[in-house]
Amino acid sequence: MTAFKLPLPINQRIHLASRPTGAASLDNFQLQQEPLAPLREGQLLVRHHYLSIDPCMRGRMSDARSYVQPHPLGAVMPGRIIGQVLTSRNPAFEAGRYVTGQGGWQLYSVWDAEHAPGLREIEADAVPLSAHLGPLGMPAVAAWYGMNRVAPPQPGETVVVSAASGAVGSVAGQLARLRGCHVVGIAGGAAKCAFVRDELGFDACVDYKTCRDDVALYHALAAATPHGVDVCFENVGGAIFDATLARMNPHGRIAVCGTVSGYDTNPRPMTDPSVFVNMRLRMQGFTVSEHEDIWPEALRELGELLRRGQLRYRESIAQGLQSAPAALLEVLRGGNFGKQLVCLC
Amino acid sequence: MTAFKLPLPINQRIHLASRPTGAASLDNFQLQQEPLAPLREGQLLVRHHYLSIDPCMRGRMSDARSYVQPHPLGAVMPGRIIGQVLTSRNPAFEAGRYVTGQGGWQLYSVWDAEHAPGLREIEADAVPLSAHLGPLGMPAVAAWYGMNRVAPPQPGETVVVSAASGAVGSVAGQLARLRGCHVVGIAGGAAKCAFVRDELGFDACVDYKTCRDDVALYHALAAATPHGVDVCFENVGGAIFDATLARMNPHGRIAVCGTVSGYDTNPRPMTDPSVFVNMRLRMQGFTVSEHEDIWPEALRELGELLRRGQLRYRESIAQGLQSAPAALLEVLRGGNFGKQLVCLC
Repeated sequence: MTAFKLPLPINQRIHLASRPTGAASLDNFQLQQEPLAPLREGQLLVRHHYLSIDPCMRGRMSDARSYVQPHPLGAVMPGRIIGQVLTSRNPAFEAGRYVTGQGGWQLYSVWDAEHAPGLREIEADAVPLSAHLGPLGMPAVAAWYGMNRVAPPQPGETVVVSAASGAVGSVAGQLARLRGCHVVGIAGGAAKCAFVRDELGFDACVDYKTCRDDVALYHALAAATPHGVDVCFENVGGAIFDATLARMNPHGRIAVCGTVSGYDTNPRPMTDPSVFVNMRLRMQGFTVSEHEDIWPEALRELGELLRRGQLRYRESIAQGLQSAPAALLEVLRGGNFGKQLVCLC
Repeated sequence: MTAFKLPLPINQRIHLASRPTGAASLDNFQLQQEPLAPLREGQLLVRHHYLSIDPCMRGRMSDARSYVQPHPLGAVMPGRIIGQVLTSRNPAFEAGRYVTGQGGWQLYSVWDAEHAPGLREIEADAVPLSAHLGPLGMPAVAAWYGMNRVAPPQPGETVVVSAASGAVGSVAGQLARLRGCHVVGIAGGAAKCAFVRDELGFDACVDYKTCRDDVALYHALAAATPHGVDVCFENVGGAIFDATLARMNPHGRIAVCGTVSGYDTNPRPMTDPSVFVNMRLRMQGFTVSEHEDIWPEALRELGELLRRGQLRYRESIAQGLQSAPAALLEVLRGGNFGKQLVCLC
């Protein structure tokens, strides 16, 4: 335990200033400053190094019904961080250690025993720090859960993963590939598709941006899935999901991790739900935040794959807290390439 | 075994003459006559008494991808029948016995050992003959399968059933009611809703025809499901399904038996699939024809309920083979009330 020796630092933080009407914009966010208060007994102060930008944050900006409460106006935007314990009056966390948790869009966070659920220490040496927000963090655990618990594919089956170059999709596809599946990604642009095929080792990747309409997208996917689709790991929704649904084999399984194409504007409909009866499909939506019990097993397995070089990943890193709002808007447009982070160093 | 003693009867049958472009019409069907050929060794001749009219027949008229092959043009329309063995050269079926199976839209069918899968003898005395196409037939087994294997509700949970007065929905809701669930039906018109509440014993029934738009439908359903919806047994799709989805509780389960609202015209989209992640829903489409193993158990249980008077049902009976096409078109418009049959006596 260390007491403050220097003047208390000034915290910078980004608040949710207003709820979007239509697409989210920079106006919905506000940067504020506030001096930190001295720590009480049991508290610890964390300096944030990386902030994770995830599409699901858009949901919390609205007040629609969801698995999380709408985020209160005027409160710091929520988000996972990697940080270092700067000062601690809590014996469970030593100063100097690295931690990850829901620290929010700010430079510092103060935690205490009651209000620090989910804060956990990480090994800073085994992998790059930022990996704990990507291939060793929530997105990868979501991919692991989908592929192991929601819709586990059998060797030889065809698996389609949308947003294939992203933080979740890249891991989902690699896990399926390691299991001996025929894995087809869907991504936007030649660079992302090359990465998905050549770096991540997917069998094929469909570039939806080269498809002039939904029919062309269907045919491109059909060419890449000659035996139909047995498992779909869905991150996008809308026309991309429709194309995959039209390729599903009888008794196909669908893990829905997200439907990002509809987050920032109107929801994107599913064109023809009759396929669920015609092909006797099973679809399950999930959020990994309510399955804490599987995190240790998932992180152990992902960590091993990462150390053996069997799990590749890519990051987009924006610089400085003030770049976080634009980074989120870019993620919602599919403009990021790989895991989107904000570096707060 | 009995040989023919009278001149061979003339068979009347309805063929699929053309595939619908848009909504099905009477032009898609054609009535034909043909004398029956003498039976060969191993064959039996069945005289049809009742023909079952089911919404899923519409699917077979098209050549879209489905769980059944498109029905060939020029062939007798497929359909389940109740009939009596008139003449038999097959020791497994005695003349005079009542049977049910896929006899098709015709007055007679000829069966032999190889081509009679699914033909089974029924007890003609225990319940009215026609019940073997309704509360003791495929629709009821579908309801049983959905409620026991696909999305079994717990006592006290809220269950919503669409097409609640129909052959499938009426049984699904009554099974849920017997299990101690809060059961809410959706049906079209005051008479159907009164039947669902007063005869079938559902806790409530929403009349979608009194709702001027989707918002009104949502509010009517919300009033009937104050604690949200835990299980949805879906027969209709479209706006009715959208309203139920918007009421689903976290971890809700959806058994999709059909999406009849989209069978005869364009498919009806699901407006907001993001609810599957937000509420972590599970949805499973099914067809009971591929689960032969559960039929004996389901029929035993349904038969007991029927004899005890715990399973109520209603039939609409059209007269004469020539009325079958119009009866199917009516079913696709939701114009029937209860199980739709054609009497061929």
